[in-house]
Amino acid sequence: MFFEGSEKKAQIIINTEKLSLLTDIENNFWEALVKTCGAKILSSMTNNSCKALLLSESSLFIWHHKLLLITCGTSQLVKAIEFFIDNYPINIIKQISYQRKNEYFSQAQPSCFSQDVQTLRQYISGKAYRFGDLDSHHNYLFHQDNHFQANICDKSYEIVAYHISESASNLLTDSSLTAFKIRSLFDIDKLFPHFEIDDHVFHPFGYSLNGIHNDKFFTIHITPQAESSYISVSANFDLINLLPQLITMLAPTTIDILTCNELNFEDKIKENLPKQFICTSLVKETLSIGEEIVFSSYSQNTQHSCDAINLKMNNGVKTL
Amino acid sequence: MFFEGSEKKAQIIINTEKLSLLTDIENNFWEALVKTCGAKILSSMTNNSCKALLLSESSLFIWHHKLLLITCGTSQLVKAIEFFIDNYPINIIKQISYQRKNEYFSQAQPSCFSQDVQTLRQYISGKAYRFGDLDSHHNYLFHQDNHFQANICDKSYEIVAYHISESASNLLTDSSLTAFKIRSLFDIDKLFPHFEIDDHVFHPFGYSLNGIHNDKFFTIHITPQAESSYISVSANFDLINLLPQLITMLAPTTIDILTCNELNFEDKIKENLPKQFICTSLVKETLSIGEEIVFSSYSQNTQHSCDAINLKMNNGVKTL
Repeated sequence: MFFEGSEKKAQIIINTEKLSLLTDIENNFWEALVKTCGAKILSSMTNNSCKALLLSESSLFIWHHKLLLITCGTSQLVKAIEFFIDNYPINIIKQISYQRKNEYFSQAQPSCFSQDVQTLRQYISGKAYRFGDLDSHHNYLFHQDNHFQANICDKSYEIVAYHISESASNLLTDSSLTAFKIRSLFDIDKLFPHFEIDDHVFHPFGYSLNGIHNDKFFTIHITPQAESSYISVSANFDLINLLPQLITMLAPTTIDILTCNELNFEDKIKENLPKQFICTSLVKETLSIGEEIVFSSYSQNTQHSCDAINLKMNNGVKTL
Repeated sequence: MFFEGSEKKAQIIINTEKLSLLTDIENNFWEALVKTCGAKILSSMTNNSCKALLLSESSLFIWHHKLLLITCGTSQLVKAIEFFIDNYPINIIKQISYQRKNEYFSQAQPSCFSQDVQTLRQYISGKAYRFGDLDSHHNYLFHQDNHFQANICDKSYEIVAYHISESASNLLTDSSLTAFKIRSLFDIDKLFPHFEIDDHVFHPFGYSLNGIHNDKFFTIHITPQAESSYISVSANFDLINLLPQLITMLAPTTIDILTCNELNFEDKIKENLPKQFICTSLVKETLSIGEEIVFSSYSQNTQHSCDAINLKMNNGVKTL
């Protein structure tokens, strides 16, 4: 069974002088917002700084002045951005950014990145970039082109593990798997102490976790199927030091890392990434809004050959 | 300027007891056949064993009992297979196989592989495979599932170089480039002695070459643009020993190799592939029609970071 784990992300920053806090908005607004892109709210948790909603298609984090929406599958995240713009005056928005990862199966997506950008450009002008080569892992990024300047202290980190080991895939697709077992496997309590956790095991496969502590968040999304495994960990604090544990647990053959405003990227990678991984992509760009973005991809040597995938195709259905 | 160099290939083997030789068929039939998939014949050459047609979208080789059609861009090669089947009784066909490489920009293709297979399955039953992971370089292969057994001496080789060096790309996109200069650069006369050559420089960019000698062929197709460089060399004789020269000339960061019935694949790679390349994919399969297929992909360590690609997007046009 194939599921597109690859994620789209949107960040909207508002001027709180012109609007009440985003955290004061009722959940029925967020329900309607995520519904536009094909998702629904499964559960939520709140602290003084942040509200975290676990979605049927990933996560929504809401701070007083900012929201971060992450969706996967065939969701059309841009529709949620449109919904927000349609419901609040455009001049309360300080900055919109939209990121989209290359998909496993892009042909099955209802729109491509340039169509998404066309949608957004009906409302805002912006710049679009691609980080990484078109024929390998890459990230698209669109950001509103205005006078907004990011705070260099606002950092973000995203690690994606592809092609996890057979044993990790078997374990994570076990039908008796519980959220407790996954939290134990990932040693969540030890790696992320003090965080309040909300998580969900999907059937037949998949797992999502939101964690918040004050204004810090992290989120884990697991698509464990051997054919299309995709495990993402995102946070607004440094995750690079978790690479050794992640690699030991999952034994992925490929890892992507995307950071914003991490100024010691290469030193930290050198310190934390096992030597068997080689860098196949390293792209840096300082955006006009003052964000320093680094995207990199790492692969390890294939030790053994494998068989080809025998494709069982239903007539006319787009498949792997 | 983007051009999709990634190729689709079809091989049709016929029973010459039931039909006159394919080489006896007039060119106007082949003109009509390649037109169905959006290509036209630019030039041709013939010897006693083989006819080689240089196309606006790659190449067509015709032997007495077999044809090999290679097309690139957004061509729909399956339509040419349909055309052949529609014009000759299906019982003269001993074997049809269809191969499709992952594209740089699959969203721009008029059909995906499973739709192509659905088209073919209106006429023949067959098996479909994927060689390589969906999120990295891979080849799809469909072959008719019948009693046909391939001759183990019928070998084929395909080398594709991606992301050639800036200097190689600059040289190959020079507006004063001539076919003679490219043949000199690739040292064609020395590497492929005795071969009769037919080649074409496309404007603004691109180059195609067909070479034949008795029943042997080789073909080179060059898409040199830095953003989407793709250089393929295919032949029905061993090309692996050319890897050192190809790598010296083009300095690609990634190389794919696909072989049929090369039984010493790994030894030959070990001998010929420079050590800085690591294997990111190695897939082997013995097909029921008696062909041993190996697909492999190699990448080298990225030494320097690069800037993100600033995307200039026309409204609504699917772009890179």
